[in-house]
Amino acid sequence: MPVERFAIPVAKELKAVENLFATQLNSDVPLINEVVQYIIQNGGKRLRPLLTLLSAKLAGFQGEAVIKMAAAMELIHTASLLHDDVVDDAGLRRGKPSTKSKWGNSISVLVGDFFWCQMSRLVVGQGSLPILKVVTDTITKTTEAEILEITKHSDFSVNEEVYLKVIGGKTAALLAACCQIGAVLGGVSEVFEEALKRYGYDLGVAFQLSDDVLDYESEEEKFGKHKGVDLREGKLTLPLIIALRRANNEESHVIKDTLLLGRMDPARLKEIVEIIHKYDGIKETQRLAKQYVEKAKTHLDIFKPSLEKESLLVLADYVIERDE
Amino acid sequence: MPVERFAIPVAKELKAVENLFATQLNSDVPLINEVVQYIIQNGGKRLRPLLTLLSAKLAGFQGEAVIKMAAAMELIHTASLLHDDVVDDAGLRRGKPSTKSKWGNSISVLVGDFFWCQMSRLVVGQGSLPILKVVTDTITKTTEAEILEITKHSDFSVNEEVYLKVIGGKTAALLAACCQIGAVLGGVSEVFEEALKRYGYDLGVAFQLSDDVLDYESEEEKFGKHKGVDLREGKLTLPLIIALRRANNEESHVIKDTLLLGRMDPARLKEIVEIIHKYDGIKETQRLAKQYVEKAKTHLDIFKPSLEKESLLVLADYVIERDE
Repeated sequence: MPVERFAIPVAKELKAVENLFATQLNSDVPLINEVVQYIIQNGGKRLRPLLTLLSAKLAGFQGEAVIKMAAAMELIHTASLLHDDVVDDAGLRRGKPSTKSKWGNSISVLVGDFFWCQMSRLVVGQGSLPILKVVTDTITKTTEAEILEITKHSDFSVNEEVYLKVIGGKTAALLAACCQIGAVLGGVSEVFEEALKRYGYDLGVAFQLSDDVLDYESEEEKFGKHKGVDLREGKLTLPLIIALRRANNEESHVIKDTLLLGRMDPARLKEIVEIIHKYDGIKETQRLAKQYVEKAKTHLDIFKPSLEKESLLVLADYVIERDE
Repeated sequence: MPVERFAIPVAKELKAVENLFATQLNSDVPLINEVVQYIIQNGGKRLRPLLTLLSAKLAGFQGEAVIKMAAAMELIHTASLLHDDVVDDAGLRRGKPSTKSKWGNSISVLVGDFFWCQMSRLVVGQGSLPILKVVTDTITKTTEAEILEITKHSDFSVNEEVYLKVIGGKTAALLAACCQIGAVLGGVSEVFEEALKRYGYDLGVAFQLSDDVLDYESEEEKFGKHKGVDLREGKLTLPLIIALRRANNEESHVIKDTLLLGRMDPARLKEIVEIIHKYDGIKETQRLAKQYVEKAKTHLDIFKPSLEKESLLVLADYVIERDE
């Protein structure tokens, strides 16, 4: 990732996180090292370390401990992607063959477990019970939301409320935890901790809404995902939920049939994208994402101006402006 | 499980562990509760809680905290079984359809994650960093050993040493941790902690050796596993490693072909079991298991006689005498 403007205040720390990944996730089992390095090198946006580092700095924390916590938060995310690849039967991840498609289900499950173990070691090593509690509560929420999402697969009655609950647990809870842990490290009072946590949560909702839009809008080579992949997996995301609620009988059948079939040709995808656009499914999802970004930013009002605060504000706009 | 003789000193606590499983693993997501109760009710021997409870009592610990730790150790085991079902593509578990075959890979992976989360909550809630460290190091070892095992699938050069390393990590490390945690709760000095840990480890090796024998010897309705399932999965366990080392060319081809094919008819299984018996693969594995049991028992020499010590000694014999 090029160092974006919002990453400048913690550029050195982000490098230290990468260095930790490159040197401290080793195992006696050679295959583990091979898989781990493949995953780490295929990167990602490192949004979770970035949030942890910026929040800690905003909360006045100085010290090395934040590097390990920032790395740990990325490891939670990575472990969950590895398990998701099995759950979603995903062939591509970040534009490259997924671990699952390169090494199979077993390795994807077990190396996911390995990442969780390494994460635990980093957090236990830090020795803060409050941080351990945040981490444990968060991974519980994430896992429950992922299971909830599966139980709602192809459930046509899913509404905005259920959808927001799923993405709150699946995505926003972890981003909230990153910011909260930064605050805990800084030892700030509850009102500041709560403000950072809420900033992370609302940012996370906006981030996922924006991801769901990109699933219909982005080009595969840029985003590393097949277009319409959510649809093919029977995932009802907000653009489609909005369209389904407003569609006429015929359009509604087209959408439902596709969700139930679990596969689709380019002509069918085009047809559905047109229905979504006709009923403003994309536009309204973008509008809601924008609302969450604005809400996220207001949580930071209580902090005095600083470089880190400015970065978090710019980052909030970035999550809905990015095209990948 | 009927209360075996060795379980009598902790019968009340074992009941409290079951009660915790029945009441404290609930989620807002209904499917999770359904799956969790299915798994919990299909039981298992509860060897890990038993070891934790007996060790804690032997180490002089009195108190409620041990219930949660005993439950946590069983949850680690259960989580790992759920992930193993995906890894091994197992249709049966304890004589009943596995979670994977009832609800699919996704649920097996994610409910496994859910058990890990619940385990973390119990251990973090207890608030002992030394126990957290034991747990984290142990699950890391377990995961690494499982991956090592996969990389050795159908590797004909696997010898006793590599095999013992795999089962040490896969099975013995967790039983060692149960006993060690009992000691940590009791606050005993290092020499007693180490003794209990070693007892658990050697018991664990004997337990796995005995499991590997049962895979060739037991009847499906009793053991809940298809006979010869390790063989079909390409797992070289000790009975077969011994046979393969001693077999003539023709016999060796029969074994290797079966491992590579990954399937087998009853006639082929019978043929291989005969080769194993011809070269004393079962007998020698049983002999080694017996050695580990005796070694396990000697670690307890430093403890003065007590009901709990007697139970651990009887339990050690049980792990190789059981027929299921």
